Amino acid sequence: MSDYSPARPCRLADVPHWDIETDVAVVGFGAAGSCAAIEARQAGAEVDVFEIAAKGGGSASWSGGEVYVGGSGGTSVQLEAGFTDATDDFERYLLMAGGPAADAERVALYAKHGVEHFEWLKAQGVPFKGTYLPGKWIEPTTDDTLLWSGSEQAWPFCRHAAPAPRGHTVQYTGWGGGKVLMERLCGRAEALGARVHYGARTLCLIVDDSGAVRGVVVRLDGKAWCVSARRGVILCAGGFIANQEMVKRFAPQALDCKQQVTGGNDNGSGIRMGISVGAATLNMQEFFATLPFFPPASLVKGIFINSRGQRFINEDAYHGRVAHYVLRQPQGRAWLLVDNAIFGRPVIEPDIAIAAVGESWEEVEQELGLPEGALQHCVEEFNRYAAKGEDPYFHKGAEWLRPLSEPPFAAIAYSPEDTNFHAFTLGGLATLPSGEVLDADGEPIVGLYAAGRTACGLPRWGEGYSSGLSLGDSTFFGRHAGRTSAQRNSAQAIEAPTSGWQPASG
Amino acid sequence: MSDYSPARPCRLADVPHWDIETDVAVVGFGAAGSCAAIEARQAGAEVDVFEIAAKGGGSASWSGGEVYVGGSGGTSVQLEAGFTDATDDFERYLLMAGGPAADAERVALYAKHGVEHFEWLKAQGVPFKGTYLPGKWIEPTTDDTLLWSGSEQAWPFCRHAAPAPRGHTVQYTGWGGGKVLMERLCGRAEALGARVHYGARTLCLIVDDSGAVRGVVVRLDGKAWCVSARRGVILCAGGFIANQEMVKRFAPQALDCKQQVTGGNDNGSGIRMGISVGAATLNMQEFFATLPFFPPASLVKGIFINSRGQRFINEDAYHGRVAHYVLRQPQGRAWLLVDNAIFGRPVIEPDIAIAAVGESWEEVEQELGLPEGALQHCVEEFNRYAAKGEDPYFHKGAEWLRPLSEPPFAAIAYSPEDTNFHAFTLGGLATLPSGEVLDADGEPIVGLYAAGRTACGLPRWGEGYSSGLSLGDSTFFGRHAGRTSAQRNSAQAIEAPTSGWQPASG
Repeated sequence: MSDYSPARPCRLADVPHWDIETDVAVVGFGAAGSCAAIEARQAGAEVDVFEIAAKGGGSASWSGGEVYVGGSGGTSVQLEAGFTDATDDFERYLLMAGGPAADAERVALYAKHGVEHFEWLKAQGVPFKGTYLPGKWIEPTTDDTLLWSGSEQAWPFCRHAAPAPRGHTVQYTGWGGGKVLMERLCGRAEALGARVHYGARTLCLIVDDSGAVRGVVVRLDGKAWCVSARRGVILCAGGFIANQEMVKRFAPQALDCKQQVTGGNDNGSGIRMGISVGAATLNMQEFFATLPFFPPASLVKGIFINSRGQRFINEDAYHGRVAHYVLRQPQGRAWLLVDNAIFGRPVIEPDIAIAAVGESWEEVEQELGLPEGALQHCVEEFNRYAAKGEDPYFHKGAEWLRPLSEPPFAAIAYSPEDTNFHAFTLGGLATLPSGEVLDADGEPIVGLYAAGRTACGLPRWGEGYSSGLSLGDSTFFGRHAGRTSAQRNSAQAIEAPTSGWQPASG
Repeated sequence: MSDYSPARPCRLADVPHWDIETDVAVVGFGAAGSCAAIEARQAGAEVDVFEIAAKGGGSASWSGGEVYVGGSGGTSVQLEAGFTDATDDFERYLLMAGGPAADAERVALYAKHGVEHFEWLKAQGVPFKGTYLPGKWIEPTTDDTLLWSGSEQAWPFCRHAAPAPRGHTVQYTGWGGGKVLMERLCGRAEALGARVHYGARTLCLIVDDSGAVRGVVVRLDGKAWCVSARRGVILCAGGFIANQEMVKRFAPQALDCKQQVTGGNDNGSGIRMGISVGAATLNMQEFFATLPFFPPASLVKGIFINSRGQRFINEDAYHGRVAHYVLRQPQGRAWLLVDNAIFGRPVIEPDIAIAAVGESWEEVEQELGLPEGALQHCVEEFNRYAAKGEDPYFHKGAEWLRPLSEPPFAAIAYSPEDTNFHAFTLGGLATLPSGEVLDADGEPIVGLYAAGRTACGLPRWGEGYSSGLSLGDSTFFGRHAGRTSAQRNSAQAIEAPTSGWQPASG
């Protein structure tokens, strides 16, 4: 069995017999896989799910259970809290959040159906209390469920898209809503008749002579099982942050982040299986990264500087965006400057180092070893404008502008060397919004689908990430992949040409 | 014939008969392909080269003909000009130049054999006059051949690796040495008996049931020819800068650069063929970019600022590094500030816009619409330290430090919107230094090799590029791929298992 590798497919001709026959084989039972299974079942397909862990949920069950949705005027929760959210604004925000590689078609689809998708999640039994938590949070510490979870109110996003809070968190007190979300989604899939095989490691894809995917080889109970998937295989096996070798090759900058955000099985096997049959990958270098420097929210009133004494970001942007800007400063070094009025021990990293303290900014500058006058000038400039409620340099929102003028002053060390940045990968297989996996020419590979972090989806730019984007993307496009695969004409599956190649004679 | 696509391989079983049989099939007759052909022939292999253009040379023949080499104490040219160049320094420089994804093994091999490779190029008949041109140039305007062509003398490179000039340019007066280089290399390959087919578009790879590459399908004289390559196929088909659709998908940030650096056939077909048989790609988002802002070299004494009035780079770094820093400034906007003493019309972009002129820096600041005091402070700080020959912020070399204090003052617009940035792609197939193409698990794909911009080679980070790296990489690792392929045990080729898969029964 050691001969199997996700990087090499098994030929159909080498399958001695089918151990399992099904319509749709889903690899991975996390956010994407569970939703794919639900939809595929509801479309009338037989579904077998292969999950490597002893239980379902994947990395999503370790998350805060936040889903980024809005548009269509507003979700019921947004409306109840007094917010409206036009589809256009939602769409523009998502486009900006997608960065240079944003997929306009995928964004438009998600923006248009965000509210509907939220209703669907509720219909699956996922609880949302529907109350609004104002302020700047990472995740609610109460069981309130609507919060600002991205850069909506921050420059430059707020200039192009009317802001609305779109983080819809599963009802749960404190961190852990992801567990509830996944219990409901996995339970629903099983209730609908998806056959879930736990402790099942998918070893490789099975392809026929035309290059169409016909099934998977799975290790189950110590044996290799050949699984026929008449209507398709859906890869929902997560990203690759837990595979150090892949991170090193494909996203080496993520190595600066010591803390992997994963349930443990994001080993890239889904991506590698896709590559094995000619799939293209996109944005493999991109990753979510953060060191949440607040709460307390008062710290957002501080300013970040680099080793040149320069500011580099509006500090009220999403914490993950701030983190990416930190990572690209010289030597990855940056400090958050605070005064006595706003200082509070950071909740998430309480042991973060204070690099310098002084009764004047000059002392802090000297203690940090910055060029003479650099930090002082930067603070003076910030203070001069902040006193007027302005920030012409970085356009931080007025509510966060206040001169840093009450001693003692301090610089909080905010470099990845000093503390634990968190990361997961955003690159993956090229797909259509339908879930169909694409080859290097952008053509679908027959019988192969992907969603969640195995695919390059909605979130594809670390600097544009917002909490809830990955769960929103995984559940929504997981559903699409499930439906597309299940609705695939089974005649097409059977009549797939054994060879697509008829070379003309030379 | 429209059925063929580089993104889908042809099955061996679908080959009706071989139209051409050879040991090694080389796809593309540019810098990598010609060197691969030379070495494969010298190792005793039959070689057929398939070149899409009507003549050889590829994009390399449109280049300046500069090869980045050094180490082993120094090349004959370096030594004659009074420079020494330890292998360690060369290696450390190349490692830094490779960025986060640098390949230490590849770098070490190149650093160790750089001088030997330079001698080899001379032995092929490539002329190097062997004279040194001091100063800061893009390419020599004389027929001198040794010049500083990277960031060797600039921070941070100079702190870690003793600098030496390593740009060895083919003897030719003015721009165009690449033509001479390629005439010699292509001529040499043909003289050694490589059969070169011009006007031959390679349509796809041919694979057997084990996944091993067995040949290519080529369109030649209006027909599709099936070519058996007993010892392997070497993909040397260039990068993908000439394929807008691929740039948009894989390296969207390169779209900011209006000028493609290509002979015209960098359409990514080699990369797509690799992907079609399960090859992994690396660094697909990376690209070389530049707008050479000098000569005249006096302009290097100016300072770049962004729309916040901040400096962001030591201006004596390689022009392509400066260009990448410009591209990542807010809105891609930046200006080069100059005074009357250093101003000279830029030679390469003489029509570049002067965005502001003034008798004081205050006037320039106002004309650019920057926050009040921002530009003035930046220039004051620069001037204050420059007068002492220091730049504690960005560590620009002392020879380029001079206060900008002689009016009138000007700001030269240096954004990609204003002018033509040049670009070519640096991402490609994952390979070993031997040229073997790797799958998603890092295992070689039997029978497939790649070099030049079809592979992710030595240059893999836009910010670390130095002129001559791509030609050095393509010629050196093209040779390796040719040798590896030719020396492949032909028994291995013949006895390759028809199937690598023997699934245990479930």
